[in-house]
Amino acid sequence: MAASKANPQQPTNDFVFGTLATDELRTNLVRTRRAGVTHLQARRPRDPLPGQPIELELTVGPAYPLEQAWVYWTNDGCDPAGSLGQAQGGQATPMQVTGVEWDTQVWGYVRHFRATLPGQADGTVLRYRISAAWGSQAEMWADGGAFYACYIADDPTPAWTRQAVVYQIFVDRFFPGQGSDWKQPDGPAGFYGGTLRGITEKLDHISELGANVLWLTPVFPSPSHHGYDATDYFEIEPRLGSKQDLQQLLAAAHSRGMRVLLDFVPNHWSWGHPSFQEAIRDSKSPYHHWYTFTHWPDQYETFFGVRDLPQINLRHAPARQHLLDAAAYWLKLGVDGYRVDYAVGPAPDFWAEFRRATRQACPDSWTFGEVVEPPDSQLNFEGGLDGCLDFGLLEAFRQGFAFGNWNAGQVGAFLARHMAYFPETFSRPSFLDNHDMNRFLWAARGDERRLRLAALCQFTLPGAPVIYYGTEVGLSQVRDVRQDGRGLPEESRLPMLWGEAQNIALLDFYKDLVAFRRRHVTLGEGSFEAMPVQDDVLAYRRGELVVVLNLSQEKRSLTLPGGQGRLLFASQPGLGAPDLEHRLDLPPLSGVVIG
Amino acid sequence: MAASKANPQQPTNDFVFGTLATDELRTNLVRTRRAGVTHLQARRPRDPLPGQPIELELTVGPAYPLEQAWVYWTNDGCDPAGSLGQAQGGQATPMQVTGVEWDTQVWGYVRHFRATLPGQADGTVLRYRISAAWGSQAEMWADGGAFYACYIADDPTPAWTRQAVVYQIFVDRFFPGQGSDWKQPDGPAGFYGGTLRGITEKLDHISELGANVLWLTPVFPSPSHHGYDATDYFEIEPRLGSKQDLQQLLAAAHSRGMRVLLDFVPNHWSWGHPSFQEAIRDSKSPYHHWYTFTHWPDQYETFFGVRDLPQINLRHAPARQHLLDAAAYWLKLGVDGYRVDYAVGPAPDFWAEFRRATRQACPDSWTFGEVVEPPDSQLNFEGGLDGCLDFGLLEAFRQGFAFGNWNAGQVGAFLARHMAYFPETFSRPSFLDNHDMNRFLWAARGDERRLRLAALCQFTLPGAPVIYYGTEVGLSQVRDVRQDGRGLPEESRLPMLWGEAQNIALLDFYKDLVAFRRRHVTLGEGSFEAMPVQDDVLAYRRGELVVVLNLSQEKRSLTLPGGQGRLLFASQPGLGAPDLEHRLDLPPLSGVVIG
Repeated sequence: MAASKANPQQPTNDFVFGTLATDELRTNLVRTRRAGVTHLQARRPRDPLPGQPIELELTVGPAYPLEQAWVYWTNDGCDPAGSLGQAQGGQATPMQVTGVEWDTQVWGYVRHFRATLPGQADGTVLRYRISAAWGSQAEMWADGGAFYACYIADDPTPAWTRQAVVYQIFVDRFFPGQGSDWKQPDGPAGFYGGTLRGITEKLDHISELGANVLWLTPVFPSPSHHGYDATDYFEIEPRLGSKQDLQQLLAAAHSRGMRVLLDFVPNHWSWGHPSFQEAIRDSKSPYHHWYTFTHWPDQYETFFGVRDLPQINLRHAPARQHLLDAAAYWLKLGVDGYRVDYAVGPAPDFWAEFRRATRQACPDSWTFGEVVEPPDSQLNFEGGLDGCLDFGLLEAFRQGFAFGNWNAGQVGAFLARHMAYFPETFSRPSFLDNHDMNRFLWAARGDERRLRLAALCQFTLPGAPVIYYGTEVGLSQVRDVRQDGRGLPEESRLPMLWGEAQNIALLDFYKDLVAFRRRHVTLGEGSFEAMPVQDDVLAYRRGELVVVLNLSQEKRSLTLPGGQGRLLFASQPGLGAPDLEHRLDLPPLSGVVIG
Repeated sequence: MAASKANPQQPTNDFVFGTLATDELRTNLVRTRRAGVTHLQARRPRDPLPGQPIELELTVGPAYPLEQAWVYWTNDGCDPAGSLGQAQGGQATPMQVTGVEWDTQVWGYVRHFRATLPGQADGTVLRYRISAAWGSQAEMWADGGAFYACYIADDPTPAWTRQAVVYQIFVDRFFPGQGSDWKQPDGPAGFYGGTLRGITEKLDHISELGANVLWLTPVFPSPSHHGYDATDYFEIEPRLGSKQDLQQLLAAAHSRGMRVLLDFVPNHWSWGHPSFQEAIRDSKSPYHHWYTFTHWPDQYETFFGVRDLPQINLRHAPARQHLLDAAAYWLKLGVDGYRVDYAVGPAPDFWAEFRRATRQACPDSWTFGEVVEPPDSQLNFEGGLDGCLDFGLLEAFRQGFAFGNWNAGQVGAFLARHMAYFPETFSRPSFLDNHDMNRFLWAARGDERRLRLAALCQFTLPGAPVIYYGTEVGLSQVRDVRQDGRGLPEESRLPMLWGEAQNIALLDFYKDLVAFRRRHVTLGEGSFEAMPVQDDVLAYRRGELVVVLNLSQEKRSLTLPGGQGRLLFASQPGLGAPDLEHRLDLPPLSGVVIG
């Protein structure tokens, strides 16, 4: 099975972590953090249970001669405030010096402080801020004055998520519904005409594939094909259908044992949102404070400088409540959770209330964030969200399997350390691609063997696998997304392939793969042990199962540590029945599971 | 008391830490360490007592998929060796994985390992190396294969060092002796004619000053005025005198209760050293391995690329023993210890044997290193040396008091954190300047008030103060040393001022200051507490004493926290008797001690 289709163009390598794409950007971030007055949610536990004491840490860089620090905190919903250890409402807890550390990079001593707050009652939102001062030095607020909070509850990630296989649907591009044809838009950013009803009609496809969770890209009224710029968080975009269509989709999905997640954008919405239009028409409007105007009416905080996407001021209680009400509204309508767009946008204290609102509306709901940040920053969402899309793993999948830039040893060590780093309770849905980057198959220059190998790896790791619509039937692109900044991510959002356009062999592989994962329920949890085998071969043990992936373009023969086993799954049909008692022969870019 | 002499030139700001002078150099060091396979003497305790278990740590950067590690160790004097956990002689102890850490700067996971070695008998030199491997990856040695060692003994820094006030004598520049005049060399690198006998004759000056330890720059045969390029470690340079002259100096000093330290250069010596001459004449010479030839006879390891200064191969046992014998020889002759030049040069395992040799030759000896490295690297010498010259504090003295680049808050926070960072048992002789940089008075543009203020700070901190000859009588320079790389450090090595050339007021100040320190014996140990007072005023508590230093060019009035006290010492005679019950008035650049 050779490369199925050659790409007409060389795919661009990835810049998954755009704001941290270069050594210089990474160094600047680290320097800034080490040099500053920072808390950065250094909190133990990150997600406190009722009654559990809460330890907070503060780091003060060499440039700040601040030798005293305080935590100001409330548990009555009010914002914490105070000065020099005197709380205004709420309480102030002095922090203790715990140590000093030399830092060669910022060239000086970094001071460490710690305070322990008393355990809080179930259902409390604990809010806090941290400041430091000394003598005549002006008091400084940690992290530029950030407001932090945590929601005190014993509300772990729902158990069903461990068996989840997610199917991501870009709604405008999935299916227009019986009796409708794809529209023929002028360009890739136009409307193709996918609908909610179309999804309902194609649930059999998804159900036969074996996925048990749908994630729909935004469905709220919006001027764009993608919907990440909504004008109303309580309605459905008419192009996509009606609220009734959504309810029918939910009912049909639920009746098949499938759950449905919506895409929720808390950070910003459309310039056309009525509240924003009123805010720029009338400076006295109550909506004025829903935004952060630096110069009314034409200068205001936005999403990455895009004027069409004003940022919502979530520290303003009515705006925050509006978002929380919206999140609760759809959960009560039957939605099962959210993929949360750009979760690093909202102020850190938003997430405690988001957690409370979503858990109260639907205790069994699942929310995970799009947090395109390194693992340490992702963990800061523990307790606010159930987890984060696993962008770190995405990078490994693409560097190791699509581009071949990492060898098997590097991928194996990354996986071993990545699995060890995150607590098992933190959801990390895994994915090979999404609507913002080249599809995996395109990145792999159309080599289907690479896609199968990567998918086999993805489906044998703990995180819930996400399949981006069309991947399972060989949907690729015609042009590169050119992620160098001139980006046209729409290139990876071509309409779903139906009927004869589908790669049935690949679809069968995916059906087998999903079934394999759902049959081996322990794959969604438990231990990971990388096994050193030989160059170019990645091997790891997941409980009873051993996964062996030949990343090289050559055949590889090996004797497995541990010896023998049954062939349970193969990435290619030609693999046959290897002599597992003695040696395992793997064709180029093929893999197996043995158990 | 205004500026006593204006400098004809603007003094150069300092680059104390030459190899780490810029952000880029610092970042590169940190990145290299985090990215690599490193131990870097992460050892607890750093200086183990007999029977105490020894914990060793290893860090493996993201680029190295090495998930197993071992410590190879010996306690019989042999070099540790082995492979993949099999020791060749000695023992191998497997390391345990202790955790994983995300590192944004090197963009990946850093793996941590730990092993605990059993406690060792008194007098043992424990030698060890660490390696890591995994599967088919080649085994890697930590820190490029460095050999580490520690000397197991309960041999703390001698108590007398806590009361030490050190006087540094650049021998060629101190005094030629009665009946001899200064020579008139062509340039600053010529010979001025100072002698050991001259020092003996001037012991009264040092004794009246109150210093109780002499540190002589190198006295061994050497072609240079400074002697840091010796040709024989067992003789005295004839220009400076004879072995008998040294013995007379030792006797005279000891009879006054003064100790004498020599300057010891273990890393390199002169190209003219007979062993080197033989090594380059005859490739079969036993001295061949005393050096590291990369291409015999013309390419070899040197001190910073200086061909005249071949590096001694201290991993070669006979060369190492020669150095240890030399160190022991002079201690047995009556010398009281060493200032060790360029202590980062020798391989890390050298220091365990150096410690054993020096302690065995003279249990009461004091050795401290010139380690122009950040505090964390200085601490790596704990257990090998008694301590390190305090280059970090030097930077604070010069930035705060000479150049005025750091304000009082910065100096205070630095001091508080610096004192907290180091264990009290680690000697940190303090100094304002030395023979390798602009004299402090020159750096302060001749403003004697700044010198007095810095000296008052120096003498009220725990580290043993070092006075560079001439500082006490106003010796300065005529030209800048231009530390930008074109360096003429000889500018700060002008001949000592005698007779009417001396600044008697300054000398009296210094005598009072030394006497004050020696009277308050607790200044050499114990706690340090920075006190926040007001802008430009540095204040700290040392036990019963409170030190208040006005760093500004304006008069400052303040009420001290804690209220009142007696004026015990003032940096300027004009200070009179302030109304300490209520307010303390400090003229510009003046300071007091209250108790």
